[in-house]
Amino acid sequence: MMIIGEKINGTRKQVGAAIRERDAALIEKLAREQVEAGAQYLDVNAGTEPEREADDLVWLVQVVQQAVEVPLCLDSPNATTLKLAITAVDRQPMINSISGEPERLEQVLPLVADHQCPVIVLALDDNGIPKTVDERLNIIDRLVNATRESGISDEKLYIDPLIMAISTADDAGIVACETMRRVRQQYPDAHITGGLSNMSFGSPMRKCINQAFLVLAIEAGMDAAIMDPLAPGMVPLLLAAEAVLGRDRFCNQYNRAFRAGKLDLV
Amino acid sequence: MMIIGEKINGTRKQVGAAIRERDAALIEKLAREQVEAGAQYLDVNAGTEPEREADDLVWLVQVVQQAVEVPLCLDSPNATTLKLAITAVDRQPMINSISGEPERLEQVLPLVADHQCPVIVLALDDNGIPKTVDERLNIIDRLVNATRESGISDEKLYIDPLIMAISTADDAGIVACETMRRVRQQYPDAHITGGLSNMSFGSPMRKCINQAFLVLAIEAGMDAAIMDPLAPGMVPLLLAAEAVLGRDRFCNQYNRAFRAGKLDLV
Repeated sequence: MMIIGEKINGTRKQVGAAIRERDAALIEKLAREQVEAGAQYLDVNAGTEPEREADDLVWLVQVVQQAVEVPLCLDSPNATTLKLAITAVDRQPMINSISGEPERLEQVLPLVADHQCPVIVLALDDNGIPKTVDERLNIIDRLVNATRESGISDEKLYIDPLIMAISTADDAGIVACETMRRVRQQYPDAHITGGLSNMSFGSPMRKCINQAFLVLAIEAGMDAAIMDPLAPGMVPLLLAAEAVLGRDRFCNQYNRAFRAGKLDLV
Repeated sequence: MMIIGEKINGTRKQVGAAIRERDAALIEKLAREQVEAGAQYLDVNAGTEPEREADDLVWLVQVVQQAVEVPLCLDSPNATTLKLAITAVDRQPMINSISGEPERLEQVLPLVADHQCPVIVLALDDNGIPKTVDERLNIIDRLVNATRESGISDEKLYIDPLIMAISTADDAGIVACETMRRVRQQYPDAHITGGLSNMSFGSPMRKCINQAFLVLAIEAGMDAAIMDPLAPGMVPLLLAAEAVLGRDRFCNQYNRAFRAGKLDLV
């Protein structure tokens, strides 16, 4: 399971303030801590107004890649921002994201194809939140057709089933897991990702829901989680789930994490 | 998900001592705490030498049922002990267990049939630990034939896939979950149970493995876990898993547990 650290996101109050004030120290700290906790990609999202988003994202990219070695996941709904940010990265980034929204797809897809970089493929179009698994698969099918036609191989794709909150829909967990199972079957070479903590939005004690969904998502085929690796218990539980699912030969990774003192956060 | 509290077990040092010393206070405390934490059955296992096991189990039964209202799960490999203990219970107990070991089956099955009580059906016979899912299913098939022939309906059965440790076999989790899935499909009226913490035997930070396996077992169809409801995080995670799996309408149970302060243990 690959971890994409989600904490450098300008819609979070503290991070938004750090971006406005060009407080590199806080961003560097978040970068280092997430990598130390196991993140293999760091999502960077400026989350600011369109007129300053590109500048802010470029600044974030520069700060983060001086602090840590891992590649970045450039997170913006805006193709112009992504185009500028991509010139600032010094190792191949992931693009977050393309979706079935026509404008976004038209503008971002060529960028992905030109740079041949990994890309998050979001099961969303301009008809609102798709309610059923079939609606999601339809959108994903269309998007995979488009990426293939653009010469992007399936291994570059990180398909996101669009994770919604169980506080607003009882079947949000089932729909997410079932979509992941279908994607795993239909596109065996593609990766599966998603924002884990969306599931707990609006619920009390979000940690419990996040932990339960993490394990269920791994079982359903997710192999790249967008998550907070610093949240107590999440990485230990992730490693334990892989061991129980027989995906950690001789529990080597789990035992190594234990010896490194990394299971103590539960 | 039904919780069968596992803590009153004489093979645990403190409980063994309490049984020898007839220290009712400790047993009552364990009984009350487990019920308070959500246990709907309490397993009682004297775990002592054969010549005193029956006396000890009868004493345990008397102490526990004076302390709490929930039914007991009489846990002994010995038919004579079970026969005596069953006369001491004042509400219908569950029998733990029958298995494919011929002597145990011959002696315990009539007791179950006479009392028409729920019974744990263990996927084990006298050929050693069954390695594969198919071997387990074969044993279970034979046992379900036997219970049906004895007039015991499938709803009384709590089928235990025989949960082994991942520290000794990488596929222990997969085999347990796949056996549960097959049982769920083949015997839709039967319950599925098992000793969750067996999975983590010999692993460091057993809590992580227990938590991961709890969620995976619920997904695979377990509806009655033999577990320690007092272990931090387990009951909250159980409730969260049921919510994410869409088995908790409007997250009512989860939210109620939160309001009662029962999710704070994570």
